Amino acid sequence: MNEEILTKLLQDVKGDNMSIEEAVESLRQLPYQDLGFAKIDNHRQLRQGYPEVIYCAGKTPQQVTQIVKAMIDRGSNVLGTRANPEMYAQVKEICKEAVYHEECKVITIQKEKPQVTQSYIVVVTGGTSDIPIAEEAVVTAEMLGNKVEKVYDVGVAGIHRLFHKLDVITGAKVVIAVAGMEGALASILGGLVSKPVLAVPTSVGYGASFGGLAALLSMLNSCASGTAVLNIDNGFGAGYMASMINKLK
Amino acid sequence: MNEEILTKLLQDVKGDNMSIEEAVESLRQLPYQDLGFAKIDNHRQLRQGYPEVIYCAGKTPQQVTQIVKAMIDRGSNVLGTRANPEMYAQVKEICKEAVYHEECKVITIQKEKPQVTQSYIVVVTGGTSDIPIAEEAVVTAEMLGNKVEKVYDVGVAGIHRLFHKLDVITGAKVVIAVAGMEGALASILGGLVSKPVLAVPTSVGYGASFGGLAALLSMLNSCASGTAVLNIDNGFGAGYMASMINKLK
Amino acid sequence: MNEEILTKLLQDVKGDNMSIEEAVESLRQLPYQDLGFAKIDNHRQLRQGYPEVIYCAGKTPQQVTQIVKAMIDRGSNVLGTRANPEMYAQVKEICKEAVYHEECKVITIQKEKPQVTQSYIVVVTGGTSDIPIAEEAVVTAEMLGNKVEKVYDVGVAGIHRLFHKLDVITGAKVVIAVAGMEGALASILGGLVSKPVLAVPTSVGYGASFGGLAALLSMLNSCASGTAVLNIDNGFGAGYMASMINKLK
Amino acid sequence: MNEEILTKLLQDVKGDNMSIEEAVESLRQLPYQDLGFAKIDNHRQLRQGYPEVIYCAGKTPQQVTQIVKAMIDRGSNVLGTRANPEMYAQVKEICKEAVYHEECKVITIQKEKPQVTQSYIVVVTGGTSDIPIAEEAVVTAEMLGNKVEKVYDVGVAGIHRLFHKLDVITGAKVVIAVAGMEGALASILGGLVSKPVLAVPTSVGYGASFGGLAALLSMLNSCASGTAVLNIDNGFGAGYMASMINKLK
Amino acid sequence: MNEEILTKLLQDVKGDNMSIEEAVESLRQLPYQDLGFAKIDNHRQLRQGYPEVIYCAGKTPQQVTQIVKAMIDRGSNVLGTRANPEMYAQVKEICKEAVYHEECKVITIQKEKPQVTQSYIVVVTGGTSDIPIAEEAVVTAEMLGNKVEKVYDVGVAGIHRLFHKLDVITGAKVVIAVAGMEGALASILGGLVSKPVLAVPTSVGYGASFGGLAALLSMLNSCASGTAVLNIDNGFGAGYMASMINKLK
Amino acid sequence: MNEEILTKLLQDVKGDNMSIEEAVESLRQLPYQDLGFAKIDNHRQLRQGYPEVIYCAGKTPQQVTQIVKAMIDRGSNVLGTRANPEMYAQVKEICKEAVYHEECKVITIQKEKPQVTQSYIVVVTGGTSDIPIAEEAVVTAEMLGNKVEKVYDVGVAGIHRLFHKLDVITGAKVVIAVAGMEGALASILGGLVSKPVLAVPTSVGYGASFGGLAALLSMLNSCASGTAVLNIDNGFGAGYMASMINKLK
Amino acid sequence: MNEEILTKLLQDVKGDNMSIEEAVESLRQLPYQDLGFAKIDNHRQLRQGYPEVIYCAGKTPQQVTQIVKAMIDRGSNVLGTRANPEMYAQVKEICKEAVYHEECKVITIQKEKPQVTQSYIVVVTGGTSDIPIAEEAVVTAEMLGNKVEKVYDVGVAGIHRLFHKLDVITGAKVVIAVAGMEGALASILGGLVSKPVLAVPTSVGYGASFGGLAALLSMLNSCASGTAVLNIDNGFGAGYMASMINKLK
Amino acid sequence: MNEEILTKLLQDVKGDNMSIEEAVESLRQLPYQDLGFAKIDNHRQLRQGYPEVIYCAGKTPQQVTQIVKAMIDRGSNVLGTRANPEMYAQVKEICKEAVYHEECKVITIQKEKPQVTQSYIVVVTGGTSDIPIAEEAVVTAEMLGNKVEKVYDVGVAGIHRLFHKLDVITGAKVVIAVAGMEGALASILGGLVSKPVLAVPTSVGYGASFGGLAALLSMLNSCASGTAVLNIDNGFGAGYMASMINKLK
Repeated sequence: MNEEILTKLLQDVKGDNMSIEEAVESLRQLPYQDLGFAKIDNHRQLRQGYPEVIYCAGKTPQQVTQIVKAMIDRGSNVLGTRANPEMYAQVKEICKEAVYHEECKVITIQKEKPQVTQSYIVVVTGGTSDIPIAEEAVVTAEMLGNKVEKVYDVGVAGIHRLFHKLDVITGAKVVIAVAGMEGALASILGGLVSKPVLAVPTSVGYGASFGGLAALLSMLNSCASGTAVLNIDNGFGAGYMASMINKLK
Repeated sequence: MNEEILTKLLQDVKGDNMSIEEAVESLRQLPYQDLGFAKIDNHRQLRQGYPEVIYCAGKTPQQVTQIVKAMIDRGSNVLGTRANPEMYAQVKEICKEAVYHEECKVITIQKEKPQVTQSYIVVVTGGTSDIPIAEEAVVTAEMLGNKVEKVYDVGVAGIHRLFHKLDVITGAKVVIAVAGMEGALASILGGLVSKPVLAVPTSVGYGASFGGLAALLSMLNSCASGTAVLNIDNGFGAGYMASMINKLK
Repeated sequence: MNEEILTKLLQDVKGDNMSIEEAVESLRQLPYQDLGFAKIDNHRQLRQGYPEVIYCAGKTPQQVTQIVKAMIDRGSNVLGTRANPEMYAQVKEICKEAVYHEECKVITIQKEKPQVTQSYIVVVTGGTSDIPIAEEAVVTAEMLGNKVEKVYDVGVAGIHRLFHKLDVITGAKVVIAVAGMEGALASILGGLVSKPVLAVPTSVGYGASFGGLAALLSMLNSCASGTAVLNIDNGFGAGYMASMINKLK
Repeated sequence: MNEEILTKLLQDVKGDNMSIEEAVESLRQLPYQDLGFAKIDNHRQLRQGYPEVIYCAGKTPQQVTQIVKAMIDRGSNVLGTRANPEMYAQVKEICKEAVYHEECKVITIQKEKPQVTQSYIVVVTGGTSDIPIAEEAVVTAEMLGNKVEKVYDVGVAGIHRLFHKLDVITGAKVVIAVAGMEGALASILGGLVSKPVLAVPTSVGYGASFGGLAALLSMLNSCASGTAVLNIDNGFGAGYMASMINKLK
Repeated sequence: MNEEILTKLLQDVKGDNMSIEEAVESLRQLPYQDLGFAKIDNHRQLRQGYPEVIYCAGKTPQQVTQIVKAMIDRGSNVLGTRANPEMYAQVKEICKEAVYHEECKVITIQKEKPQVTQSYIVVVTGGTSDIPIAEEAVVTAEMLGNKVEKVYDVGVAGIHRLFHKLDVITGAKVVIAVAGMEGALASILGGLVSKPVLAVPTSVGYGASFGGLAALLSMLNSCASGTAVLNIDNGFGAGYMASMINKLK
Repeated sequence: MNEEILTKLLQDVKGDNMSIEEAVESLRQLPYQDLGFAKIDNHRQLRQGYPEVIYCAGKTPQQVTQIVKAMIDRGSNVLGTRANPEMYAQVKEICKEAVYHEECKVITIQKEKPQVTQSYIVVVTGGTSDIPIAEEAVVTAEMLGNKVEKVYDVGVAGIHRLFHKLDVITGAKVVIAVAGMEGALASILGGLVSKPVLAVPTSVGYGASFGGLAALLSMLNSCASGTAVLNIDNGFGAGYMASMINKLK
Repeated sequence: MNEEILTKLLQDVKGDNMSIEEAVESLRQLPYQDLGFAKIDNHRQLRQGYPEVIYCAGKTPQQVTQIVKAMIDRGSNVLGTRANPEMYAQVKEICKEAVYHEECKVITIQKEKPQVTQSYIVVVTGGTSDIPIAEEAVVTAEMLGNKVEKVYDVGVAGIHRLFHKLDVITGAKVVIAVAGMEGALASILGGLVSKPVLAVPTSVGYGASFGGLAALLSMLNSCASGTAVLNIDNGFGAGYMASMINKLK
Repeated sequence: MNEEILTKLLQDVKGDNMSIEEAVESLRQLPYQDLGFAKIDNHRQLRQGYPEVIYCAGKTPQQVTQIVKAMIDRGSNVLGTRANPEMYAQVKEICKEAVYHEECKVITIQKEKPQVTQSYIVVVTGGTSDIPIAEEAVVTAEMLGNKVEKVYDVGVAGIHRLFHKLDVITGAKVVIAVAGMEGALASILGGLVSKPVLAVPTSVGYGASFGGLAALLSMLNSCASGTAVLNIDNGFGAGYMASMINKLK
């Protein structure tokens, strides 16, 4: 339930187009809807401007599907991250429009297309293996109505590739830097651009990368200012926060 | 062998309803019963008020079944944690009443229903994915005769859900807070309620959650007083200790 | 050398108010000035809009003073972080306007007052002991021309204090959350406000806080969206990035 | 402001012994008192039954003293942990009754003696070097009105010492186990007694104790049920939670 | 090639029962035999009294089998640890006497039975789940000619079980303590017995046991003297070193 | 595109054997070729003397194959590390000469045989289980035109095996030391030879080896001078750097 | 109170040379003597053959002195580890024979010289900086009546120094290997000698030695059999356990 | 004793210019000289071409001075790292030519100037605070007869400074990259130059740099080939190994 729908409902009550009883019924689940195993935060869209996002890992396909159902029943868009194909299959059965972004394991249902921003977010990766995480950020940001540009595989092993794309990077309002291994990409970008850089360490690598710890620590210790860091492999979080910043006026 | 049974036996001996020889035989395994690969602590119920609990992980289904057999032969209730379906299948064969709580992988056999407490334990989770661990606590506490209330999926991302349930939480004698990711739920509860909070970090999360380490450290460093912490994913331990506290007079 | 000064110089050349030779001399050190032990990045203000910042830790007072001298000779403002009183004493000798912010160990020299933004940054702390880090963010952001509001000591142990200040927090364009111990403040804020939250873990705490690691991991794993994390105790970085975001249009 | 004082005030208003204006003035700071750098949680005593506790580390002596002043002005008892002698000296100047517990670095001011419980808390240490942390628990628990017994230096290197004191330990309503090095004391007690055990790892040890990490992990992994763990060296937290449990009815 | 065989060979040469050429051929591989991918340390039995042991993990079944073949060709006994069934199947084909100890994944081939010691080694475990590691120690020690006693499942959760077996434990010349979780067993034994205790942490446990790290640190920090520690799950190493000590005169 | 080819092209342009348009077309992809998901660094051979290497892990077989295709289209040799059989199968389809080095999971395509060096690199392993990593170094170094000698399974448990091979080791221009477990091999070699030692820790081991961390730290702390360390299991990196050093004049 | 004294006392009672009352008085403190802050384990000498050892770190000089007094009053020898000069000064005042081993910070009081063993313990160090820890082992072992040989500074950076001393090393009944940095010494010795090796990692080193962690992990993962590990810098523990083994028959 | 001196001695013996007895006396300490607490590795210069280096940390000034004396008595050059001023003062007394490099805490005594190489080593730092470690490398390399160039303070926060110095960097035979914080400098250099890069992480930084761990992991995981890593702050090791490589022919 977003602000628009809420305003409409209150106008209907005022204009006698809806009875008080109907309105109460409709508003009863405004703060959240209780499924027992889950309490869907319907108030979120009013409070933060976006509907709740479903973190699918650790849930059963049944639970995911029930949450999705409750959300689409209220006209909400749906974004489900870390979803497996089995979850998608069940969701698909109750909602034909559901889309599965296989590379990044995201389910989306877009009831109404948001207006797309003019300013854009650029998503940059160090390597090809970082793309799944980058795509999670891209899908999230696009779902939230942002224009997104992609610059993939421009890591520091061949830094001229990055310089070649510098115009598309510096033209963005926010930069998302996705890199594994030593994660130096974030520092390079932080030193070159004058826009906020959101750094996403990935678990790409082996040995002393310790599942992304090396890139994480590297990004936290960046000697370049203007960089803040997300959790390892948290493409969603980067897309979400980039959207927040991109929409600031 | 609980205190009641022991008293009965001694009265029988005194009243000549049981021969000394029979009593000796029956008491021979009082301290523990030796199965070679396992030594079942029969004395525990007298010493601590609860029978021994079987930690099934790392045991063979045969070993689990033999331990269960030895326990039910002595009239003991049985609680087996971290049991897989194969273990349950074998236990089921020697004991029809065995129940498998699939969500939390616990086997229970309840020979005699305990009297249920009036005061209750509340089990609170941050998210839906924390429920399996919460259920381990619930099954344990109920098995030990406690009244239990559940408040699931009220994490800090939408904290009004928690405030909405504050009455059921503050009415409890003990609070179990189950949360993964950053585990902030424990601090919130610790700051709001005046009852002991047992915090259970879960391994829910990814990346820098490092298998629950983030939530564990977060809970250990809680700025709110009145909180103590269990091992990661240790729902059983929380249920057990909560029962101890709930039954204090 | 900022854009304004550069434009002026080129206009002077064009208008014959400055000889080519003088202009060359003045531009020779545009990319950076080489002191041997340091190469001051004069190009930074053109590239990123802010002059270089001096990280004083690990430098000798002599080195700090020489860098400051080179910067003020070019008309630059100066921001030196992690400076000790001995460094300040030497800097003071070559520049009377130098100010020492003792609580957060920052030296500032403000040659020209920047225009202050209308939108503001809010800096929130969990406890009183987090204030030195918060002040580093405040001094940095103010130095860069931002309006800043402070909400200190509103951690989750008494969360009504935070709710009481919610209007000043939600009115900000960017939120900086500074907290040690379990760092839950960042998650609470992330769940409540619709603005980007920059989370700064502090080394406040003891034992299993491991010098701020607990708060760092907690913030990285926040279940609330819209949060990104800075290095432990990195108030400067938060103030710098918040300024970037606050000035976006 | 505890419940008693609040009731009295409202009765005075009702009985016309206090004007509405006076009452409002007096209640204005009920939720918290804002000192700028600190917001004292006056509501805490009503919400949780105990006044706020001052964590002195990282604060200046001036800040500590101002907080103490604000608390005693409202008739509150004061408990300040991790205080150094300089802080105490300043506090002493504004409040003659202030006591400094040097061994555990705690400042206490007890305006009114609480009624002492009949049931008692036992504080057990593994070694002599763990006593400072144990004393923090003792002072905290006694300040909160609990009867406390001490059993010091009964670690597992000479376990018969512990067995010799088993009656005083098993007679307690709650057990606090304080131990460094390998922290085995908590497991031993957890296996022997039927009361909740609060385990406090200490930083006593060297080498691979890693500042108490060894004892912390050991206690978290205790094979004995009925144990929950506090932060390393957190004697205060143990005393506080033990008080909560000891006072349960 | 042990000392006995070598003496025999030299006597044969001296007594003209063997030509110099034959002796040279036989001695050519005395220091080691080179298989290319492996260099079998034939000199080890002379230098250290035991033949080389095969660490099978990370080798192919072919490599294991070739090494075994080379060893039995020289009349050596064979001990292969961490072997999987596929390796055993191939070894069995070239040597009928090969035995597979399934529980601890060890292959043994005993060409000549060693004389068994009179003094004995006792292997003690905390729980049933620690038995596989304990058995690796048992098989190793028996293979090397030691008398071994087993006391399993006597961990500190029910410490009377251990006291009940104290005579068999104190009668040993060396004690091997095998325990996971918090590993307190080693400290208990170290405090009770006057014989060297070899502590083997196991990876039994979950959550903050971190794959045996908790038990390892616990054992390294034991407050009881007379304890030294092996690698996590290193039953072989414990059996080997216990044998060395048991055979000292 | 290596220097030779580039020179030829320019000569052709100068000698009118190639039109400007053809040359431009051919040079368009000189800096890199953009496949969207990957940007192949064609400039690398000119800049560093070797073509780009494909790190296959985390890429799809399709992506690997497309990159290989783009490289062989330009006449480049191909080295793909961490490739699985499925990747190889697809690559094989587009290029018959592709070779799969199964033991170390490397794909190579050698369009033109490089001239082999006279000086050689020696690759030494501690055990047989370290061979796969060693082979990655061997294949890499040979691919780059180096003569390579192998000395396998000469770890410190039987150090006479190493001394026996000392001449082949000391005759090398660079030494690669590959070892897991405690990684002492690197220190031994560092103390014995006067040539640079590149130490490669492997993940061979268990328990407190923590996936190679023990060997890594051991090698970083070597008390012998003349040793530098690669990432855990990074045989490729060692082979590459050894080649750089071996070819120095 | 050792076995000899106890036997004497009982003979005196039997022979009427001591009244029952006197004997009871004398035996009252047999299990332990309670000083409040410490419980001295008098039973230890009977149970384990050695008197209790005082770990002085974390105790006040007064506490150390009181414990020493109680021990010498009962005729016990005294060994106090990690003692500072201030502690020694106070102990010296109550006992003239007290000796301070400054290099290893040990206080000893030897009331009766023990008989010295014929077999000996050898203490080997990697470097000169490891000597303080080695000396703690030497003093401990000598105090307990062992013959000790020292071989210092024979680390692997110049391994011929170790080979030169091999005869004194192989002649020992137990070997103590003390080394920091990468700790390879333990593996070398483990591979060369046929006697038990007790490995003591030291905190000598910097950077990635992480206070001795590198050496600790290295020693735990030793590829050579026959090695067990003590805590970092635990020279005392090594001397104590070596004594146990050296005295085995 | 280097090769030249040894040859001279043998020629003298052959030419009857030195008696056998004198030669034996002179050669007695060839393998090493035993000072008891230290065994100086005189053979090192023959074996590895450089004399032994003194790691002064953890040694007493007396020990350092005795070792220096023994070395200069044999005509050796001296390099002592991590030396404090007190050590230097004592060394200065026995050797007037001793030089103290205060910035990097190195003592040098150069009895004979080595011939300087034509090819050079370049030492590059990320920041000014990394210079002390860089200087340790410089002094070491110069002491060993290498030409050295310095490029300081060219970290990635202003990467144009590095590009400006690219010619001096690419002209070197070996590159030493010294950087703290996130250590990205090593990856940048590895991607740009075709020479071996020796990466030295420094402990410059704070918070999640964890004493240099962040830079260490970053450098180990470099996506650029041709880089190997030294211990944190190990400037000496880098200078030593760079010298080895620089002198290869």
